[in-house]
Amino acid sequence: MTSVEAYTALAEELKEIDALSGIDAILGWDELVVMKEKSAESRAAQKAALASVIHQRQTSERLGELISSAEREGGLDPMQEASVRDARLKFDRKTRMPKELAKQEAILGSEGYQAWAKARENDDYDSFKPVLSKIVQLRIDEAKAVAPEKLPYDYQIDKFERGMKASRLAEIFETVKAGLVPLIEEITSAPQLSVDARLAGGDAAPIFEVDKQEALCAQVMERLGFEGILNRSLHPFTGGTASDVRITTRYDDKDFISGVAGLVHETGHALYEQNRPAGENLGMPVSEALSMGIHESMSLLFERMVGQSMEFWTFLRPMVAESFEFTENLEAEDFYKAINKVQKSLIRVDADELTYPLHIIIRFELEQGLFDGSVTVDNLPDKWRELYKQYLGIDVPSDKEGVLQDVHWSSLAFGYFPSYTLGAMYACQFFQHAEKSIPNLGAEIAEGNFESLRAWLRENIHSKGSLYPSADELCEHVTGKPLDPTIYLDFLRAKYRKLYKMS
Amino acid sequence: MTSVEAYTALAEELKEIDALSGIDAILGWDELVVMKEKSAESRAAQKAALASVIHQRQTSERLGELISSAEREGGLDPMQEASVRDARLKFDRKTRMPKELAKQEAILGSEGYQAWAKARENDDYDSFKPVLSKIVQLRIDEAKAVAPEKLPYDYQIDKFERGMKASRLAEIFETVKAGLVPLIEEITSAPQLSVDARLAGGDAAPIFEVDKQEALCAQVMERLGFEGILNRSLHPFTGGTASDVRITTRYDDKDFISGVAGLVHETGHALYEQNRPAGENLGMPVSEALSMGIHESMSLLFERMVGQSMEFWTFLRPMVAESFEFTENLEAEDFYKAINKVQKSLIRVDADELTYPLHIIIRFELEQGLFDGSVTVDNLPDKWRELYKQYLGIDVPSDKEGVLQDVHWSSLAFGYFPSYTLGAMYACQFFQHAEKSIPNLGAEIAEGNFESLRAWLRENIHSKGSLYPSADELCEHVTGKPLDPTIYLDFLRAKYRKLYKMS
Repeated sequence: MTSVEAYTALAEELKEIDALSGIDAILGWDELVVMKEKSAESRAAQKAALASVIHQRQTSERLGELISSAEREGGLDPMQEASVRDARLKFDRKTRMPKELAKQEAILGSEGYQAWAKARENDDYDSFKPVLSKIVQLRIDEAKAVAPEKLPYDYQIDKFERGMKASRLAEIFETVKAGLVPLIEEITSAPQLSVDARLAGGDAAPIFEVDKQEALCAQVMERLGFEGILNRSLHPFTGGTASDVRITTRYDDKDFISGVAGLVHETGHALYEQNRPAGENLGMPVSEALSMGIHESMSLLFERMVGQSMEFWTFLRPMVAESFEFTENLEAEDFYKAINKVQKSLIRVDADELTYPLHIIIRFELEQGLFDGSVTVDNLPDKWRELYKQYLGIDVPSDKEGVLQDVHWSSLAFGYFPSYTLGAMYACQFFQHAEKSIPNLGAEIAEGNFESLRAWLRENIHSKGSLYPSADELCEHVTGKPLDPTIYLDFLRAKYRKLYKMS
Repeated sequence: MTSVEAYTALAEELKEIDALSGIDAILGWDELVVMKEKSAESRAAQKAALASVIHQRQTSERLGELISSAEREGGLDPMQEASVRDARLKFDRKTRMPKELAKQEAILGSEGYQAWAKARENDDYDSFKPVLSKIVQLRIDEAKAVAPEKLPYDYQIDKFERGMKASRLAEIFETVKAGLVPLIEEITSAPQLSVDARLAGGDAAPIFEVDKQEALCAQVMERLGFEGILNRSLHPFTGGTASDVRITTRYDDKDFISGVAGLVHETGHALYEQNRPAGENLGMPVSEALSMGIHESMSLLFERMVGQSMEFWTFLRPMVAESFEFTENLEAEDFYKAINKVQKSLIRVDADELTYPLHIIIRFELEQGLFDGSVTVDNLPDKWRELYKQYLGIDVPSDKEGVLQDVHWSSLAFGYFPSYTLGAMYACQFFQHAEKSIPNLGAEIAEGNFESLRAWLRENIHSKGSLYPSADELCEHVTGKPLDPTIYLDFLRAKYRKLYKMS
């Protein structure tokens, strides 16, 4: 067999597996956007049947041979090499997973979610504890079986953020914490921002008709350059496949800004989804997202670096006024203030740009503790309260608003939380580099022209897919150095001190 | 192995195959309702990958052994027996299909459709002829290989209308033709019905806002008792799976009646889909539709026997007036006239209840000819013209409006057309029987109460699924005799003579 033949045979098999996985993605989208609750059981049967087919193909002896053969023959270009590298990684991880653990994973995945949902509803952490304990153990056992060369928590992080380690994360987060805790104190002690009542949400706000919000969001999506499908769902998400990207957002009729922010965030994900390697690399491992942190950086670059900027609201203000006449006399600055208001809060998903990283750091430290034994499922809620008091200075009145607020652990995901803040930091570092490469970027955004930014992102990040083995390497290629948290800190300091007029 | 074990093992495999086929149904729905054109290529790859998985499972040695084992062990109830019977039938047909023909089928399926679409657009039958010729030959070869005991055209009919033969169809259609040709002559020679301009469609009609039509249709759907998903698509259809039925309709802003008619038709299909055998029989062969004719009878019973009745419009009139105030002073009779107007026409899908069967009979006779050699692809367009002149008295000005109007042959479907008219006749025979069993049926419909009718359909037809080996047997169980075309003819004579006030 020639090297071309070996690679071609592997590619054919991988693309067929990718097509089957793409079906799973469409079913997932459908479940959240279209399907009625009563069809859940039959959908579960469909997904189980498909998952079994996919798993069989992903772990087949034949695939193993095709990968070995492609590795042996060599003669590949860098994109192809990256695909073979990742095919090997995935194959080894899948085939090394003991059957007994895989079975337990499936059971705990469903048990865990149900126990958590019930515990949260009843504010009853104790009822969730036994399952959580099993979940942590499962993830430790899994790591030992699949990647014995790694620390168990490192392996869990690696699943979402390839190449990242807990030790490096701890360093990064120490830097962030050291800068952020006093900065938040400084900002929240300053006089509160006065936000126009029309933009403050809640009872005093006017009604922003949902249909008009949706039409406005569709326009914004088009201007940002995503030509896909937009729907509503309970939580905004980006779904579908690279060739068929679909985003959703949700609308609050008292707060149109949250709908727009969700739309802009998902559009960032969507552009990354549809601009990764195509052509012969479409459906190959190199076309996958490099990491969750990079995926999140692409959404946060749009949501925060673009969508929370004065320039963006300079562009959007007249469009908003056309949809909602009663906003006509508002200035860009009014929107800018409303979307950047800082407020310490209990709930991660409601947190603002400035306080959000502390929510993540708390979860990271607790996860680390659960894996090294310094935190147990017994003292987890107390540790949670301690850290919220220590870093954010707030009291957690209930587990419902504390340790039970997030779905991640019940869904077996440990090591996922850091991606959110890594994403925010990458977004900042990338964007500042884009600003250097595109001298008029601010003015372009103020005109609603996102072409140069999109082209820059496509060339430097989207089109690279999983070419590099870690986000740090990508970051170094793009910006000249690996992730540097001080860039993010400096950005936050300058932005919020100016906004709160303190320096 | 006990008989229970043998059947259980077979059932497990069949249900998993059914779950995979259900995924294909959801993808099919998505393609027509959600997906954008640009995703067609990736969707085709998904469908091909899934089809290959399904085909492998449907023809696996293991399935063959499971069926044999269940047949050998026996001890089944009638529903289970029917499932085993049909599993065998399907398995034999699939495994007897020569690989070479299956490959050609896949190629011609796509080539045929494309050639037809282009030929129709350019009104160029000659460009379609070579493909059509191959398609007919493929269907003959297939029948010889798979069901050598049957006449080739009988086999094609059997695929859609199990147990039906061309010879019995010819008899039935002779009766219909003999009654219908003079009846149509009589009706179309009578003074034209005067239809209120608001309901006549076309330029003179007012605008029926599409959003309001959709809201009205959703209400009608609910009243008819279908609690599923309603969307818009280019052509109305019923999709999804038994546990997740989805219907679509389309709206013409000058003619709201066509949208309602489409909705009522699809609701009939949908109720059949979701009320067939469930519980342990869900996903088993016995839960499938008995035949296309029976499926169509369930939609036409609602569309024509209910939806084209005076009682139905007595119920609907006030709801229409609420949506469209300008219809306030119209009577049920105005709607009844509008929806039952008879007019000879060239195009099958636009044909009215009375002339529709002749469009079908023409296609049946031509198909029969193509299979027995008395018609060739060369003289097909001429034969088409001859029969339209002879049975409907109209001239066919172009092949576009003639032999090229339907998609079926290009999609390799021969023997499908008769289902439409079989469905209309079954619908009539079933409905007349329902009227005998439910003494107040007319009054109930006039009140928008469809409960007894639904219960009757569920008990007598829906819940039987594929229990009986032919539609005739089902019909005999339900009405005391097999399909009797004179019932339909008598119904049409009485209805249209009264409407056109001739007797």
